[in-house]
Amino acid sequence: MEPIQGRQVATLEIMKEVIKKSPFTAFLGTEILACSGGSAELVVQIRPELTQHHGYAHGAIVGCVADNACAWAAASVVGDVVTAEYKLHLLAPAVGDKLVGRGRVIKASARLVVTTADVFAVKDGEEKHVATMMATIMPVGGGGSDKPRT
Amino acid sequence: MEPIQGRQVATLEIMKEVIKKSPFTAFLGTEILACSGGSAELVVQIRPELTQHHGYAHGAIVGCVADNACAWAAASVVGDVVTAEYKLHLLAPAVGDKLVGRGRVIKASARLVVTTADVFAVKDGEEKHVATMMATIMPVGGGGSDKPRT
Amino acid sequence: MEPIQGRQVATLEIMKEVIKKSPFTAFLGTEILACSGGSAELVVQIRPELTQHHGYAHGAIVGCVADNACAWAAASVVGDVVTAEYKLHLLAPAVGDKLVGRGRVIKASARLVVTTADVFAVKDGEEKHVATMMATIMPVGGGGSDKPRT
Amino acid sequence: MEPIQGRQVATLEIMKEVIKKSPFTAFLGTEILACSGGSAELVVQIRPELTQHHGYAHGAIVGCVADNACAWAAASVVGDVVTAEYKLHLLAPAVGDKLVGRGRVIKASARLVVTTADVFAVKDGEEKHVATMMATIMPVGGGGSDKPRT
Repeated sequence: MEPIQGRQVATLEIMKEVIKKSPFTAFLGTEILACSGGSAELVVQIRPELTQHHGYAHGAIVGCVADNACAWAAASVVGDVVTAEYKLHLLAPAVGDKLVGRGRVIKASARLVVTTADVFAVKDGEEKHVATMMATIMPVGGGGSDKPRT
Repeated sequence: MEPIQGRQVATLEIMKEVIKKSPFTAFLGTEILACSGGSAELVVQIRPELTQHHGYAHGAIVGCVADNACAWAAASVVGDVVTAEYKLHLLAPAVGDKLVGRGRVIKASARLVVTTADVFAVKDGEEKHVATMMATIMPVGGGGSDKPRT
Repeated sequence: MEPIQGRQVATLEIMKEVIKKSPFTAFLGTEILACSGGSAELVVQIRPELTQHHGYAHGAIVGCVADNACAWAAASVVGDVVTAEYKLHLLAPAVGDKLVGRGRVIKASARLVVTTADVFAVKDGEEKHVATMMATIMPVGGGGSDKPRT
Repeated sequence: MEPIQGRQVATLEIMKEVIKKSPFTAFLGTEILACSGGSAELVVQIRPELTQHHGYAHGAIVGCVADNACAWAAASVVGDVVTAEYKLHLLAPAVGDKLVGRGRVIKASARLVVTTADVFAVKDGEEKHVATMMATIMPVGGGGSDKPRT
């Protein structure tokens, strides 16, 4: 997917720097694996303080992984963004060692970016689909990519 | 709102115990203020590790407050629940000392509970509306309220 | 709620003209009752060709009433609009003589308007809550109100 | 995708009969092309009374195609269903000769079926992506497929 004209897009290197400056994203230990051409991928290790009382990753953590996957996929074509709204379906308990989120842009314009993401819990190398999201992401600023949302 | 027949509902006292057993909810310092008759209210103090790079409460924290407000409002009429899906609108930056979430049941049945919640950021005693949610909450188990979702 | 600066808002009279020019809205027999200050109200008579096989108003008709209530509430503060996305909960069978939709703006800006609406089925003068919606409405054009979306 | 155990699923032949009995679906001239294994496809010809004032297919018609694609995909694995809720993104004006909707099940259980659908406007044989949906579909009844929702 091509960048939206006049917008300076986010890259993997830029996003790695941004993540370091966002306290909650850093607390989660979020690692970004890909961010280009309308797609993004990230991973969060599941550790005890990210779980709920059954030992699964908490829904808010799953939602955060999905939201970041959507927002960063959008940032790869429009640069700096904020999330306007999203819908999250929790499909199965998030049991495993880590969460992987993969987002992609469905349609991008200078006003709105419609995106989707899936979250997988990985246990012993096997992925289970635990959540799906659709999100409306909004480009902000003049398109500079120095401070995309995390 | 009346409890759904045959379901043992959650109370404020039960929910306080449940919150303690949920590591992520405890990490957030979530305090539940009310839980009865189809309504729930809770508060989370905003501290640095819950923020993003602009210093606002992170969207995932705002979403977690809204989701808990919905789920606990549902638990007050159907007991033990899980969140099936929700839609979150982020309306304004969550700047302030604390987040307050207020949820209420729109319609409850033994199969599904439709709920809504609003989140307010409180600064110097003044509330600002920062998010709104609609959520589908699903009753689980035999209706025992000893382990509602947090 | 005040109009957004620089936007020429829709009024009840303008909307009545607009509805006449929209074939599907006219086919539904949509009647607009109110449109000002961030709120809108409309009514559609339930007749056989608007029902599904159980004799209820079809979900698409209920959704159309909710969407129009949201869009027209938004138009009353920002003028010409299009619907970007919405979430609709169907709460109960839409049985009755007519559907009434009531929408209101939750938050408006020149870029996006967040709205909500409820739909009621009216039978023998009694209202039953049959659906609820949250919608993202997008202002379009230069703010002229001569052609709001219907 | 396998049927959910104990549920009598809908087939293409059954759905064709059901559509005839639903006045609004029949009014739309809805034609179902496929319904099996968790997927469904349908088509609606765009004619003047289904448009809004710019001559595009009305959003309610686009939403109806998407909702039916989701519900019928679900019916192919769980039989009789109703729509609990959905989120619809309108991506582009629905200009063309006909609308094609394609739905598929993301996850199915005896309690809830999570589905997604895309709608395309076809003009001169070329498809344009005009809408995307995520929907929560609820199995109803004892699983008999003689009266799935349309």
